[in-house]
Amino acid sequence: MGCNEADSTLATDVLLNADIRGIDSHGVARLIGYVRLWNAGRINPTPDIKIVHETPSTAVVDGDAGLGLVVAPRAMEIAIEKAKNVGTGWVSIKNSNHFGIAGHHAMMALEHDMIGMAMTNASPLVAPTFSTERMLGTNPIAVAIPANEQPAFVADLATTTAANGKLEILQRKSEEAPTGWVQDKEGQTSTNPHELKEGGALLPLGGDREHGSHKGYALGSIVDIFSAVLSGANYGPWAPPFVSFLPLSDDPVGEGLGHFVGAMRVDAFRPADEFKSHMDNWITRFRNAKVAEGYDRVLIPGDPEREMVDIRMKEGIPLNENVVKDLQEVGDKLGVKF
Amino acid sequence: MGCNEADSTLATDVLLNADIRGIDSHGVARLIGYVRLWNAGRINPTPDIKIVHETPSTAVVDGDAGLGLVVAPRAMEIAIEKAKNVGTGWVSIKNSNHFGIAGHHAMMALEHDMIGMAMTNASPLVAPTFSTERMLGTNPIAVAIPANEQPAFVADLATTTAANGKLEILQRKSEEAPTGWVQDKEGQTSTNPHELKEGGALLPLGGDREHGSHKGYALGSIVDIFSAVLSGANYGPWAPPFVSFLPLSDDPVGEGLGHFVGAMRVDAFRPADEFKSHMDNWITRFRNAKVAEGYDRVLIPGDPEREMVDIRMKEGIPLNENVVKDLQEVGDKLGVKF
Repeated sequence: MGCNEADSTLATDVLLNADIRGIDSHGVARLIGYVRLWNAGRINPTPDIKIVHETPSTAVVDGDAGLGLVVAPRAMEIAIEKAKNVGTGWVSIKNSNHFGIAGHHAMMALEHDMIGMAMTNASPLVAPTFSTERMLGTNPIAVAIPANEQPAFVADLATTTAANGKLEILQRKSEEAPTGWVQDKEGQTSTNPHELKEGGALLPLGGDREHGSHKGYALGSIVDIFSAVLSGANYGPWAPPFVSFLPLSDDPVGEGLGHFVGAMRVDAFRPADEFKSHMDNWITRFRNAKVAEGYDRVLIPGDPEREMVDIRMKEGIPLNENVVKDLQEVGDKLGVKF
Repeated sequence: MGCNEADSTLATDVLLNADIRGIDSHGVARLIGYVRLWNAGRINPTPDIKIVHETPSTAVVDGDAGLGLVVAPRAMEIAIEKAKNVGTGWVSIKNSNHFGIAGHHAMMALEHDMIGMAMTNASPLVAPTFSTERMLGTNPIAVAIPANEQPAFVADLATTTAANGKLEILQRKSEEAPTGWVQDKEGQTSTNPHELKEGGALLPLGGDREHGSHKGYALGSIVDIFSAVLSGANYGPWAPPFVSFLPLSDDPVGEGLGHFVGAMRVDAFRPADEFKSHMDNWITRFRNAKVAEGYDRVLIPGDPEREMVDIRMKEGIPLNENVVKDLQEVGDKLGVKF
């Protein structure tokens, strides 16, 4: 696409990190989507990523329409530098594109003994509580917290009951969705996994009002505001779609997609060794919590992905046949031998 | 109890702010609980609240076993001062007690054109996904975001499907709880609102694994770690109970209860007027989202509480008969005429 060597390597790292962690929906399966956005002129392969506003602990970064896979890690580096100087660093990013898995960017803080955070707004697919209109993306929040002997605590969660990728799996298997995942175009709860193609919407975490969907809606909104209103990106229903065949809004309220990343130096609060040894204790205590019948054990956020890394480092990353076809198409188009 | 005038006034403000906003479970109904904790020697009415560690954008505050109602607003003032200096301020607090509604502390930032955040850990009542053990509190997160002509966006949410206060309402009415709110002591979903008294637990937002309870569990965990592991308070199952008849842990891992508060200056990201006018647009657009049949309108986080303020400023705050009895008991005990 014309990215330089460093940016290509960085973007590849982010995609492969998703695949190796078992988040197949956000790995190389998305490569063709990024290429199509570039074809449509919506991704700038040689962006001039720069700070447009800053204080000692904050910055706004203009991603210059670059790949989010490149823009977000650069912004996280700025947050980490600021945290080194004044304890914490917080960067809101405009004029970017889809940034892959949020967890990758949050985890960049770990090796610096910092807590990392990353969030992003996304294509509008989610209806607020009591609404039939798609106003928010799946707007994930990732938080990575270092420990000492235990592996880090890594939460990476969409603020919806279920991410779109899970619906796609049900579609392939022709299975029904659990209630609370999607609603139809009238706002009625539905078990049809194809509902999004028929004017339906994903539901905020909680599913319905009685089960706290107003909380998932509030969390998704906070992600939208931190990522896009603070930075000057497009927010809410104006957020640009990931798929290149959908048009951009003709009355944008900002530039591109938005992200928000942060880093907090642990020793800005208490000595790092002390904190990390209490995190070991926290993790061990929760991992040893009493297990309900029918389950093996209590998991710590990040456990399933870390275990998948162990498996895939040995056995490789299985690729879906359609993904292989897509990669071949990309290779043919860009003159890369498969 | 021996609090000085300023602290008494501050604590009263926080409690009355809960009542006027319609969060009756966190208003004067709790006064007797605080008094009992003081009787049990667990609340220090004349605390020396001080910073024990800091950087330009962070601090750890030792609450000296004071009322959380007093400690948290003082910590928020420190966060706001730091935000004035370097863009953002983040304060983790140890050795505190129950701090009332999180929203009050987050909203302190609004008049400074800052985004405010507040969270706290709490009495362990919530079982992690796949567990039967109570490991976390209802651990709320509040985020307050200023607008210009529109009222502020104020989210204040427990990271559980339903807060304990909602179960108490069902108990009084002898009604069943919806599924997804509580589980019994074996970890089976239950509709018995008395389940907590029988070894059961509240469920994380999501309710069960299929509906994303691992996300609610992760969010509650993040609140616990930011509030208590960062500060040096008691975390997880070691968090001190609010009710004075339950014993404190005999192997504490820190001091008292923990909170975490933060303030971000809006103009540390973009000019405040620009941000606030986009917030007006955000709020207006979401308020005008298409409504599902059977509902009046789409709400913005903070709308229900703000509307309750309007009603109660006119009509007063209705008090439950048991709350009146409790207040009389407190008045008699402390020599305050009722």
